[in-house]
Amino acid sequence: MKETVTNSIRAEILTQALPYIQRFQGKTLVVKYGGNAMINRDLKEAVIQDIILLSCVGIRVALVHGGGPEIESMLKALGRESRFVEGLRYTDEETMDVVQMVLCGRVNKDITSLIENAGGRALGLSGIDGGLLKARRLKAASGGDLGLVGEVLSVEAELLNTLLNTGVIPVISSVALGTGADAGRSLNVNADTAAAKIAAALGAEKLILMTDVRGLLRDVKDHESLIRALTRPELEQLKREGVVTQGMIPKVDCCALALDGGVKRAHILDGRLPHALLIELFTDEGIGTMIE
Amino acid sequence: MKETVTNSIRAEILTQALPYIQRFQGKTLVVKYGGNAMINRDLKEAVIQDIILLSCVGIRVALVHGGGPEIESMLKALGRESRFVEGLRYTDEETMDVVQMVLCGRVNKDITSLIENAGGRALGLSGIDGGLLKARRLKAASGGDLGLVGEVLSVEAELLNTLLNTGVIPVISSVALGTGADAGRSLNVNADTAAAKIAAALGAEKLILMTDVRGLLRDVKDHESLIRALTRPELEQLKREGVVTQGMIPKVDCCALALDGGVKRAHILDGRLPHALLIELFTDEGIGTMIE
Amino acid sequence: MKETVTNSIRAEILTQALPYIQRFQGKTLVVKYGGNAMINRDLKEAVIQDIILLSCVGIRVALVHGGGPEIESMLKALGRESRFVEGLRYTDEETMDVVQMVLCGRVNKDITSLIENAGGRALGLSGIDGGLLKARRLKAASGGDLGLVGEVLSVEAELLNTLLNTGVIPVISSVALGTGADAGRSLNVNADTAAAKIAAALGAEKLILMTDVRGLLRDVKDHESLIRALTRPELEQLKREGVVTQGMIPKVDCCALALDGGVKRAHILDGRLPHALLIELFTDEGIGTMIE
Amino acid sequence: MKETVTNSIRAEILTQALPYIQRFQGKTLVVKYGGNAMINRDLKEAVIQDIILLSCVGIRVALVHGGGPEIESMLKALGRESRFVEGLRYTDEETMDVVQMVLCGRVNKDITSLIENAGGRALGLSGIDGGLLKARRLKAASGGDLGLVGEVLSVEAELLNTLLNTGVIPVISSVALGTGADAGRSLNVNADTAAAKIAAALGAEKLILMTDVRGLLRDVKDHESLIRALTRPELEQLKREGVVTQGMIPKVDCCALALDGGVKRAHILDGRLPHALLIELFTDEGIGTMIE
Amino acid sequence: MKETVTNSIRAEILTQALPYIQRFQGKTLVVKYGGNAMINRDLKEAVIQDIILLSCVGIRVALVHGGGPEIESMLKALGRESRFVEGLRYTDEETMDVVQMVLCGRVNKDITSLIENAGGRALGLSGIDGGLLKARRLKAASGGDLGLVGEVLSVEAELLNTLLNTGVIPVISSVALGTGADAGRSLNVNADTAAAKIAAALGAEKLILMTDVRGLLRDVKDHESLIRALTRPELEQLKREGVVTQGMIPKVDCCALALDGGVKRAHILDGRLPHALLIELFTDEGIGTMIE
Amino acid sequence: MKETVTNSIRAEILTQALPYIQRFQGKTLVVKYGGNAMINRDLKEAVIQDIILLSCVGIRVALVHGGGPEIESMLKALGRESRFVEGLRYTDEETMDVVQMVLCGRVNKDITSLIENAGGRALGLSGIDGGLLKARRLKAASGGDLGLVGEVLSVEAELLNTLLNTGVIPVISSVALGTGADAGRSLNVNADTAAAKIAAALGAEKLILMTDVRGLLRDVKDHESLIRALTRPELEQLKREGVVTQGMIPKVDCCALALDGGVKRAHILDGRLPHALLIELFTDEGIGTMIE
Repeated sequence: MKETVTNSIRAEILTQALPYIQRFQGKTLVVKYGGNAMINRDLKEAVIQDIILLSCVGIRVALVHGGGPEIESMLKALGRESRFVEGLRYTDEETMDVVQMVLCGRVNKDITSLIENAGGRALGLSGIDGGLLKARRLKAASGGDLGLVGEVLSVEAELLNTLLNTGVIPVISSVALGTGADAGRSLNVNADTAAAKIAAALGAEKLILMTDVRGLLRDVKDHESLIRALTRPELEQLKREGVVTQGMIPKVDCCALALDGGVKRAHILDGRLPHALLIELFTDEGIGTMIE
Repeated sequence: MKETVTNSIRAEILTQALPYIQRFQGKTLVVKYGGNAMINRDLKEAVIQDIILLSCVGIRVALVHGGGPEIESMLKALGRESRFVEGLRYTDEETMDVVQMVLCGRVNKDITSLIENAGGRALGLSGIDGGLLKARRLKAASGGDLGLVGEVLSVEAELLNTLLNTGVIPVISSVALGTGADAGRSLNVNADTAAAKIAAALGAEKLILMTDVRGLLRDVKDHESLIRALTRPELEQLKREGVVTQGMIPKVDCCALALDGGVKRAHILDGRLPHALLIELFTDEGIGTMIE
Repeated sequence: MKETVTNSIRAEILTQALPYIQRFQGKTLVVKYGGNAMINRDLKEAVIQDIILLSCVGIRVALVHGGGPEIESMLKALGRESRFVEGLRYTDEETMDVVQMVLCGRVNKDITSLIENAGGRALGLSGIDGGLLKARRLKAASGGDLGLVGEVLSVEAELLNTLLNTGVIPVISSVALGTGADAGRSLNVNADTAAAKIAAALGAEKLILMTDVRGLLRDVKDHESLIRALTRPELEQLKREGVVTQGMIPKVDCCALALDGGVKRAHILDGRLPHALLIELFTDEGIGTMIE
Repeated sequence: MKETVTNSIRAEILTQALPYIQRFQGKTLVVKYGGNAMINRDLKEAVIQDIILLSCVGIRVALVHGGGPEIESMLKALGRESRFVEGLRYTDEETMDVVQMVLCGRVNKDITSLIENAGGRALGLSGIDGGLLKARRLKAASGGDLGLVGEVLSVEAELLNTLLNTGVIPVISSVALGTGADAGRSLNVNADTAAAKIAAALGAEKLILMTDVRGLLRDVKDHESLIRALTRPELEQLKREGVVTQGMIPKVDCCALALDGGVKRAHILDGRLPHALLIELFTDEGIGTMIE
Repeated sequence: MKETVTNSIRAEILTQALPYIQRFQGKTLVVKYGGNAMINRDLKEAVIQDIILLSCVGIRVALVHGGGPEIESMLKALGRESRFVEGLRYTDEETMDVVQMVLCGRVNKDITSLIENAGGRALGLSGIDGGLLKARRLKAASGGDLGLVGEVLSVEAELLNTLLNTGVIPVISSVALGTGADAGRSLNVNADTAAAKIAAALGAEKLILMTDVRGLLRDVKDHESLIRALTRPELEQLKREGVVTQGMIPKVDCCALALDGGVKRAHILDGRLPHALLIELFTDEGIGTMIE
Repeated sequence: MKETVTNSIRAEILTQALPYIQRFQGKTLVVKYGGNAMINRDLKEAVIQDIILLSCVGIRVALVHGGGPEIESMLKALGRESRFVEGLRYTDEETMDVVQMVLCGRVNKDITSLIENAGGRALGLSGIDGGLLKARRLKAASGGDLGLVGEVLSVEAELLNTLLNTGVIPVISSVALGTGADAGRSLNVNADTAAAKIAAALGAEKLILMTDVRGLLRDVKDHESLIRALTRPELEQLKREGVVTQGMIPKVDCCALALDGGVKRAHILDGRLPHALLIELFTDEGIGTMIE
């Protein structure tokens, strides 16, 4: 199909992106990168291209990532058994070591390398670097001990702003510096929540959670029932009505956290669509669910 | 046709522009804007969009313009008769007054207004402002007096650099400050040459002359004989061979002037093609003739 | 007479200006330049010298000008007939085109050229450039349509501050960018009012209106009845008393507008006196009327 | 013993460090951190304290590290077998993945965490981040393929200078971005050599290699035969004489590389001594071997 | 004893200072320098070393000094007789001339010279320079005229901040510019009070008064009754109880003045102890009395 | 006479100074201030006014002063006897102490106070402050010891440039920091020579020596034989011819020193004329002798 697009049409399409570029230039975008978009090779390339393009036209983009599957496979390779507390994995010191190693050493550097090789400028960081993320231990809902699992207490926004101001794309692993009794230890933090806190600390225009679902559905069995846009009060209403199902609750809570922290809009985006980021930002077509 | 282009294809086309954006970002482009691209309404809009897009993605764009037809029609409206010296119009004080008024007051402000209204940031200047262009009188080839016609002696590059560094698009009328005996008088300078001198003073990556021809043709009667690219020595060779015809000599001389002043590449572009600038810069398709 | 002034007296006179220079250094002065001071050749030279000297000793000077007589004579030369609405000229598109051309292309560039040639640094701008002045249509008092006549809605002060900070004298034509339904059109705005709005936007120390009268007279027939200084409340009182006559009402309203916008003092100055600006600023002699 | 040191003596000792602080303030120090100083817990703490103190008093410190033992143990844990080429380990893709993961994810973040927790400001980077280190494949001496082993081609000094200027301690893993046919791949580079190239690129005052030996010995069996200082030509002489033994050749070659690149002095330091860095820099006692 | 301190212990002692350096870095310290510490040669050298070290590790130090004994001896050498008003010396014009000459020309330059020669960067100033201290006449308690004795009205903090930001140590004589009827005259101001006002104007972390006493004693005859720390309200209480004796009242009032002006802590330090400043700041041992 | 000068003439005189202001703006002027201009009250006021005016219009002015008469009178008051070596006063330690005290404490602060009180911004410094002037001992022509008399070896231009760039007028006493065996001691340096070295270090436009003579006379008995301008070679010629008499030799040598150091022009000015500085700089009338 590409061949049939003449350069004249290309040029026209480029100029049609102009109003969107003008709208977002100088604004900050925090993208939680994960799911299929981080695994499928073609999708990965498309995301990297999107991010570099956004950065290139003057949008400040920060990337936050986790890496569940890679951690899982490394634990397996090392023959480690997982223990679960109320359905959540208990993170002992050895597991935390693997989490840190895989997130900061493999996933983070792979993303950074992809951006650098495509001509972008990225710096791969974790919450440890420059004291970017400080955290304390998190208990399970019923108070059970989860080991070295943490919740973010503070974000060192100045460092990120300095990098963003010079056109660098910070790529951030969801590993934080422990505090108090855990000073000196690394804590495993949820990447979605870390992204929301970072977005709030940066006063971001948008938080974008890249997921493997279409967005928030009114009827979970009907893919056509996508809720394209809703407000913060409407979100609470939907939660009360039970429309927000089990799996989506953490995602929408994360969006709420960002909005309450001053972020303008939060998006649950379908990362399985190639160039989902660009389509969301640079066309009229809304993808997934937008909460404001 | 636009309707048939899906957003997914749009996104892909945008990312295909990425390597070109990366190549030219931070570089300086001097565009001599004239001919049909300045008269036809649709073409005019397309040029403005192109220029704002280029500026928006971090390319430093300066625009230089003349305005022969507008001057002509105003002289006619005022009932002024033109006197010619060796085929060139003699510019007396009254004519110069009209030239300045039309170029700086009508053409310049119209272009600036178009850019501002499309969301760009432009400052309309003439060679008088900030002493941007200083000139001395130019004689006709045989030494005949042409009146208040000048040739540019110096360009105040610092002012332009300051503006370009803050993302402003300078729009420059080809009217210069006289020097010596002409101090205090305005002089009418050729817009192509002014653009070449400005490009040299700015150390521009490219000088682009927007014209109403396809480019330099090997056989002036054969539109398919376009010379797409040539080097500075090849240009001299072509001139010696008589391939460069009467009308094209000033254009190619102007390109040579820019190249000799340190500009990397000079282009004679067909301004009758919509989005000729974007196609030249952001696709593989060369338009018109490129001299390097 | 000059010959009889010894250099020793000259030096003493220079040092006597010191306290005035110290008082105004770093402060902003907006001068509405018009009337005889803009027409008479000697007066014009004196004004230019004054302005360069003020700028030279570190006072930030912005110049705003109109150009009624020049517009009038060009309309006549083009054989245009004027239509009047409630005594005000109706500005149709063709008239607006002439207004813009004459103000931005002739008057503005002539002033800029004079400053540049006297060794000052000036940039000739209009309200179009950098979106300096944005305006909406103005109706006549009784609601009659005046065509493309506008009132200033906003002033882009940052651009002016940037220029003033680098010692540039902005010379500003009273032509504004239309907004809303008039986006893309130029609107003709009153130069006095534009100067007042610019002075307010810059937080100016003084607004100076150069006029062809001595100032505000208590008795219009008695030239010795000049009111040298009055306060904002006294001004209102005089208006109620009918002391402010027809012709002076727009001038004093303009002063009030500036004062209400935060300008410290507004002056109605007699531009027919050579060096009126310097005498007002650098001696104890008050010229014309000062409102604070 | 500490208890017997009065505060008065402490104060005197602090002021005795003053001339050394004055000498090195604003200078750059590149430390290759490795060996026992990186393994033994007490030594590790002492090194971290030294580095923070140096940074705290205004010396610009960059840390480069490898991590042979950690890589070895992880490869063992994963059941990987090593293949050797001419005595050097062949680095296949899977091994490279482990190298990167261990160096960037474990060793680098552990050092960074130690500095941050002791109140310093560190950023853990690899050669991938910001394109810090670019490399090409290295062949074994006899031309044998070593897999993904690289030699550093270029160092992005600007990024490091920006960090050092704001008081940050960059902690750098010896993993580089491949180029040419290896673009997109990570290459394993020797940490000593990387440190030397970084020192040269930064115009460092000193390169310090922390080792597990006393320094360069005239007689390898006699620990008292330490050569405390030598010049670049003397080093060549010693190599010709065979005094530099097998194990020391890469170390001294690395020092030579730094000196040839403009570094003032290179040190082979005994990292088994607590506070070896401070003693070397802030007392008259030379530790190990200094080459200049 | 020094000889028995090994370099290893030295290094450890240096690193033990690290937390204190980190605590005070970037903070401002105003030291009133006087008494024995300014007369005894060894003490003088120790103070200078302390101050340079503090400045060297990034603490902003300003020094304020008087010079009673030197003034006394110069007045004697010139055969001037002193007149006293309520126990205070009356400062006539001739005495003021000597005060200024001795403080600004001898004491100030001697301290500055010592710092410069020890490798520090100092600028010797008085309250006259840059209008640093402006003062009005002070009356004796009972209203008696003290001649040219003044109390500080304002401190030009910006000049000091500029110097401190570039690592310069300002050395300030307690001579101020008179105002009002005393414009053009120098006034003699109390150095303690000047230091307190300067500390307040700089938002200092600490004001340190170097004295010849151990500090505030609960029982003036018992040297062991030193009050190590007290709060502002406790100070008032002690004054009411009569614990603060005659000689100490001006010192504690001066501390109170600083604290009320926003200084965090004020210290009355025993300047007879070598390195009292370093011991106070860089060890756990409190010297003298600290009020907060 | 002043009363007869109308404000209109005042204004004209001010504008006549414009070209001179434009010529010297941003340029550096080093004035050696001494002689009658420093003693006579009216002359002193006139000089201070001139200097503030020059500084106010953007000329960078540094003042260097000695103070022979004041030193003499203080030595007398203290009953010190002077010893002479080859006609030059021998400066022992006690004399040096008086020199420093009088120059830095009395003369320097008096000038600084005058400038501050007249609304200028001055900082009184000596060669000690910031290591501004470093010197070594100077021997008498025949090698005789002159005690603590020095010649300037280096000027710390950066400090002066920083001050001048912020509009401060540095007032500098001719006392320098000793070096080598004299480290820690102050040395008495010649103020003319110090001014010449400072002018050279600052790349000054002009060095102006204020003296009590009309300038260089062709015939020392004929006041009308003033040499208004001469070149460096002509100066050498005049010296060879014996036209430069005993008293003038140090002055012209000092001018030569400045010119050889890169200063554009050196002036020997008659400081007995009120406003000599302004007349020299801001009128066509040359005062005294100019060497270029």
